[in-house]
Amino acid sequence: MTTSKQVPAQLSETAASLVQSKSDQSKLVQSQQDRSRPPASSQPKAPSQAQTRPATPLLDRVAGPADLNAFRDADLTRLADELRTEVISAVSETGGHLGSSLGVVELTVALHAVFNTPMDKIIWDVGHQCYPHKILTGRRDRIRTLRQKDGLSGFTKRAESDFDPFGAAHSSTSISAALGFAVGRDMGQPTGDAIAVIGDGSISAGMAYEALNNAGAQGRRLIVILNDNEMSIAPPVGAVSKYLTDLHDNSPLRAFRDIAEGMEAALPGPIRDGARRARQLVTGEGGSGGTIFEELGFDYVGPVNGHSVADLLAVLRAVRTRATGPVLIHACTVKGKGYPPAEHSADKYHGVATFDVASGAQHKKTPNAPSYTSVFGTALTDEATRDPAIVAVTAAMPSGTGLNILADRFPARVFDVGIAEQHGVTFAAGMAASGLKPFVAIYSTFLQRAYDQVVHDVALQGLPVRFAIDRAGLVGADGATHAGAFDLAYLCNLPGMTVMAAADEAELVDMVATAAAHDSGPIAFRYPRGAGTGAEMPDRGRVLEIGKGRIVAEGSRVALLSLGTHLAPCLEAAQMLDADGIGVTVADARFAKPLDHDLIRQLARHHDLVVTVEQGAAGGFSAQVTQFLLNEGLLDGGVKLRCMTLPDRFIDQASPNEMYAAAGLAVSDIRQTVLRGLSHDSKIAHLRA
Amino acid sequence: MTTSKQVPAQLSETAASLVQSKSDQSKLVQSQQDRSRPPASSQPKAPSQAQTRPATPLLDRVAGPADLNAFRDADLTRLADELRTEVISAVSETGGHLGSSLGVVELTVALHAVFNTPMDKIIWDVGHQCYPHKILTGRRDRIRTLRQKDGLSGFTKRAESDFDPFGAAHSSTSISAALGFAVGRDMGQPTGDAIAVIGDGSISAGMAYEALNNAGAQGRRLIVILNDNEMSIAPPVGAVSKYLTDLHDNSPLRAFRDIAEGMEAALPGPIRDGARRARQLVTGEGGSGGTIFEELGFDYVGPVNGHSVADLLAVLRAVRTRATGPVLIHACTVKGKGYPPAEHSADKYHGVATFDVASGAQHKKTPNAPSYTSVFGTALTDEATRDPAIVAVTAAMPSGTGLNILADRFPARVFDVGIAEQHGVTFAAGMAASGLKPFVAIYSTFLQRAYDQVVHDVALQGLPVRFAIDRAGLVGADGATHAGAFDLAYLCNLPGMTVMAAADEAELVDMVATAAAHDSGPIAFRYPRGAGTGAEMPDRGRVLEIGKGRIVAEGSRVALLSLGTHLAPCLEAAQMLDADGIGVTVADARFAKPLDHDLIRQLARHHDLVVTVEQGAAGGFSAQVTQFLLNEGLLDGGVKLRCMTLPDRFIDQASPNEMYAAAGLAVSDIRQTVLRGLSHDSKIAHLRA
Repeated sequence: MTTSKQVPAQLSETAASLVQSKSDQSKLVQSQQDRSRPPASSQPKAPSQAQTRPATPLLDRVAGPADLNAFRDADLTRLADELRTEVISAVSETGGHLGSSLGVVELTVALHAVFNTPMDKIIWDVGHQCYPHKILTGRRDRIRTLRQKDGLSGFTKRAESDFDPFGAAHSSTSISAALGFAVGRDMGQPTGDAIAVIGDGSISAGMAYEALNNAGAQGRRLIVILNDNEMSIAPPVGAVSKYLTDLHDNSPLRAFRDIAEGMEAALPGPIRDGARRARQLVTGEGGSGGTIFEELGFDYVGPVNGHSVADLLAVLRAVRTRATGPVLIHACTVKGKGYPPAEHSADKYHGVATFDVASGAQHKKTPNAPSYTSVFGTALTDEATRDPAIVAVTAAMPSGTGLNILADRFPARVFDVGIAEQHGVTFAAGMAASGLKPFVAIYSTFLQRAYDQVVHDVALQGLPVRFAIDRAGLVGADGATHAGAFDLAYLCNLPGMTVMAAADEAELVDMVATAAAHDSGPIAFRYPRGAGTGAEMPDRGRVLEIGKGRIVAEGSRVALLSLGTHLAPCLEAAQMLDADGIGVTVADARFAKPLDHDLIRQLARHHDLVVTVEQGAAGGFSAQVTQFLLNEGLLDGGVKLRCMTLPDRFIDQASPNEMYAAAGLAVSDIRQTVLRGLSHDSKIAHLRA
Repeated sequence: MTTSKQVPAQLSETAASLVQSKSDQSKLVQSQQDRSRPPASSQPKAPSQAQTRPATPLLDRVAGPADLNAFRDADLTRLADELRTEVISAVSETGGHLGSSLGVVELTVALHAVFNTPMDKIIWDVGHQCYPHKILTGRRDRIRTLRQKDGLSGFTKRAESDFDPFGAAHSSTSISAALGFAVGRDMGQPTGDAIAVIGDGSISAGMAYEALNNAGAQGRRLIVILNDNEMSIAPPVGAVSKYLTDLHDNSPLRAFRDIAEGMEAALPGPIRDGARRARQLVTGEGGSGGTIFEELGFDYVGPVNGHSVADLLAVLRAVRTRATGPVLIHACTVKGKGYPPAEHSADKYHGVATFDVASGAQHKKTPNAPSYTSVFGTALTDEATRDPAIVAVTAAMPSGTGLNILADRFPARVFDVGIAEQHGVTFAAGMAASGLKPFVAIYSTFLQRAYDQVVHDVALQGLPVRFAIDRAGLVGADGATHAGAFDLAYLCNLPGMTVMAAADEAELVDMVATAAAHDSGPIAFRYPRGAGTGAEMPDRGRVLEIGKGRIVAEGSRVALLSLGTHLAPCLEAAQMLDADGIGVTVADARFAKPLDHDLIRQLARHHDLVVTVEQGAAGGFSAQVTQFLLNEGLLDGGVKLRCMTLPDRFIDQASPNEMYAAAGLAVSDIRQTVLRGLSHDSKIAHLRA
């Protein structure tokens, strides 16, 4: 073991020296602090801001983790410093999740130095902190393609590298997966140690608790590293390293804990906000009594300074040598560590656009229209001023969902339940049963976490819970893991559920009003990530008639029946088809359920071809329309129907438009579908002969 | 407060005196102990076993909870005794969840005596222990219709009574819902106290942890009663009542806990099975240090003897008078309490058929064929003997899923993760990633709890997790809450997912073999509750060709394309149609995904009408078939298509056949759909004119 110590302050200075800190200039645009808020869209780096890449002599010698074996411990600390500058440099060009990656630089180096990856499995919870890991594991040459089309994923991804044994992007899955690998190892599969690295937010979710409970009961060797960046620790913790180096080699792991108790006593007293409460829970109250981890059957080691490579090496080596059962290592880190603009920012540069390394100034696009998210938040706040029964629920994403706007006005009416979608939905169902009017604002992809609660607690009981489903459809740089692809399918077949999709931000305002007024059962409305279309905004939302769509353009031969924001591409396609000499009706369905039967009947009766278009997987809107038309016999008479949905494959990250093109939902695809549909008759007649 | 004490033993004797205990005759058929295993189908009571109803002079005076105000405390104890005999008598005629209801008889009486229902909201977790509650809340006259067509639900149900403020049937939802009511009350809705009653198994689920965490943080008045029937308590705990009656009226609630510590010290030492570990977790280790509830912000009161009405009254009155924040009352109960055949049975009569009260002997049908559950368990065990990489996961239901059969043979290869579907699925994904071949056996309705894990951890990564989905389709007496209605819809649209449905138990054996052999991605197979068709069983499962169905009967004019066990009704309908002069092809699709394109093309080309038939909601198999046929242009040429799915409403409990009839999926409905479909042409031609 090394006795070299690099205290955190020195690390900061090392990195800061490379980037010419100007902390007084770092009061940047406030951005969101939510756990998986995607960074703002990156834009090509302005030529005038060409930045020199940092010198990284040690990092240049690392083609893969095996190369770390050649380093002395003191060199590993310097390697971490270089790795940090490389992460900052790369993300300044691509945008991405910077703060969380900077928080685990030392941990990443220490893990790869001590463990034998890829035989040993490191599983990064959520996965957005994996940039240093990607750089060390053979992907440095592509790190500046992060989150871009055909580039590296912003998350861990099995298809990308053997060093990513289990991909992630949604939170709180890592302990379950690691336990699976541990079982595999114990049953003879070619797998070494299983190590889950999980943040203090993620570990508070019910799923992580289930996994800890089961792992503790199984009792097999498993390593969980709690990456706790809520506990900002100052000098006292540095002293842990002294104890660590003094430890007898064969003393039991529990001895770490006795040392740690002295450390904990020096920490500041509890602070009463939600995040701190979660931390108290996971770490035990004030260091006295057992931690929850010990109650669950884990050996608890820590806290350890997560920015001291030397301390981390000592702890990890001890655990690797001596662990026989489940061990939890409590590492304290700082989000944005080592990059002053990030450290001093309110959101620690959780998700950033491209930026200037020296100043930290982000290159943010000025959108042409307000985001759907902010339109929702503003519209809901407007409704809430008139109706005191309106309340709202978010699962740890107040600003990501726009509910921060409501919370600014009515703080007592917004409930942030933490990363707890299951509880959040049923909690809302209880509020609805009591007579309140709850809006549950959860991204499409995360609402999957609460599907049974939507079915069993809301739909079965017909309770008027309003689901505001942001990030519907394809979402851009976050890729397939965050796609809102399935909500139409998993909601439309629930009896009594009303499902809307906004065609633009003005219609979203109306849908908020409609949901507020709809008190006879559950209702959901979906809308995409990003900026609106620039539609003229109403002063106040109108209550839409349930189950009624609208005709947007009239033609004679073909009808495009659009749900949601693919209305704009449909209108574009209609214009092109008009130029082709084909008259096209374009309808905005507004409701995926209940369907506008009159509208759909009219479309079927007065056109040769009807094409449904939606930003969702098969089984949703199109399935509803199709079953209605078929079972009414409306397709028996010659009209043809085609369904355009997301295809039966996952779409990798790119811009949303590129992703829709890859999905076969571009304007040109709509036009082609129409042309092929109209010309199909003879072919089929031939086939049936 | 009363000072009257009824020790548990006396309660047992009281009840036992009414039923002529013969404990040496109570070695009954072992049945399952799973948390929500539905009872075996009831059958009409044999005339020779007509049982006299117990005398219940006190209970006869109770038309509703308000009538309890007229009782002295000592009378409430006697009322509880009568209530117990009434529950036993009623369930002996209907079958149902007896053990859990007997465990909460005293708690039910005490809650209704102390709280002001329905203004105060009692929320029974899972809801299957609600029979005494239903009897006290105006439903005694219908209690002998429990779980039958047009009768009372076997669970709490909002539509049934104002005294059921929040229905349940899946576990671990009650705290979330109660917190919702508490917020409603605090925001001016007409709601009093919110009381969640939750078992020690249910409270160990992640969702309950999320709710406790959030409730503790909110800090508002809320009462959670932990109904702990794992902790079987003997005389020492009875002494709590002495302390309780001595308490000063205005001493803080926490004083209860100090008293309780003395009690806990007298309990037997920890036992190392899973259930006990869960209990230790929720109650804190050995009484020293804070319980997890206190760490989460709850006042902890207990343990209290859950079979002493006097003790319960004292605790509930104190809590009602003095609670200002969240309070957890830890009540210790015995499942099956007061009915010796239940108490002495391994499963505590969790779910029973009709039975003879005197002997406890259940009137079980002898099925004509093995259950699908046991066929699955046996087939999987057979595969596992040949392939050591096969492992299996259950979420607290080893016998309900048939995995007990595998566990008997290979105990180390079955993982019971507890009520933790989310963790269970991702744990299996981790095992698959390590090279093992995991089968996850979860009922269709409960797999909804792990939908995001299926999407994000399994499907997105293409991991070969095998999902054995029991209780697909309508399930009988458990009703709408347990219907396996949505799995086809929520699985078929996931890229890379293979989805099968067995037409009979022989095909199920083949599908187990197919799933074992399919190592290139996720695969699911569904099968219904209950006995098979009596099909001839293969010696060993055959590996089916992926995406290939089969023709079962050949006709010329109409094709019935069946998925799953509705093949039998399809064949019946075909026979009737044959008699009508209409030749019918019947195909067993086997695969909902990938589809057998060749087969479906042939059906479409060579018949006038194709009808898809499935035991699932819209958006599943039919949506896959329809979209394929439409987008290939195969419906353009004149063939008609109709889709028979579960309708867009929830179906209340009855026998499965009655439920399918109510759903429009009876044999006669299939025939009618064909006849209407064939005769539709002229009507449509008219409509389009």
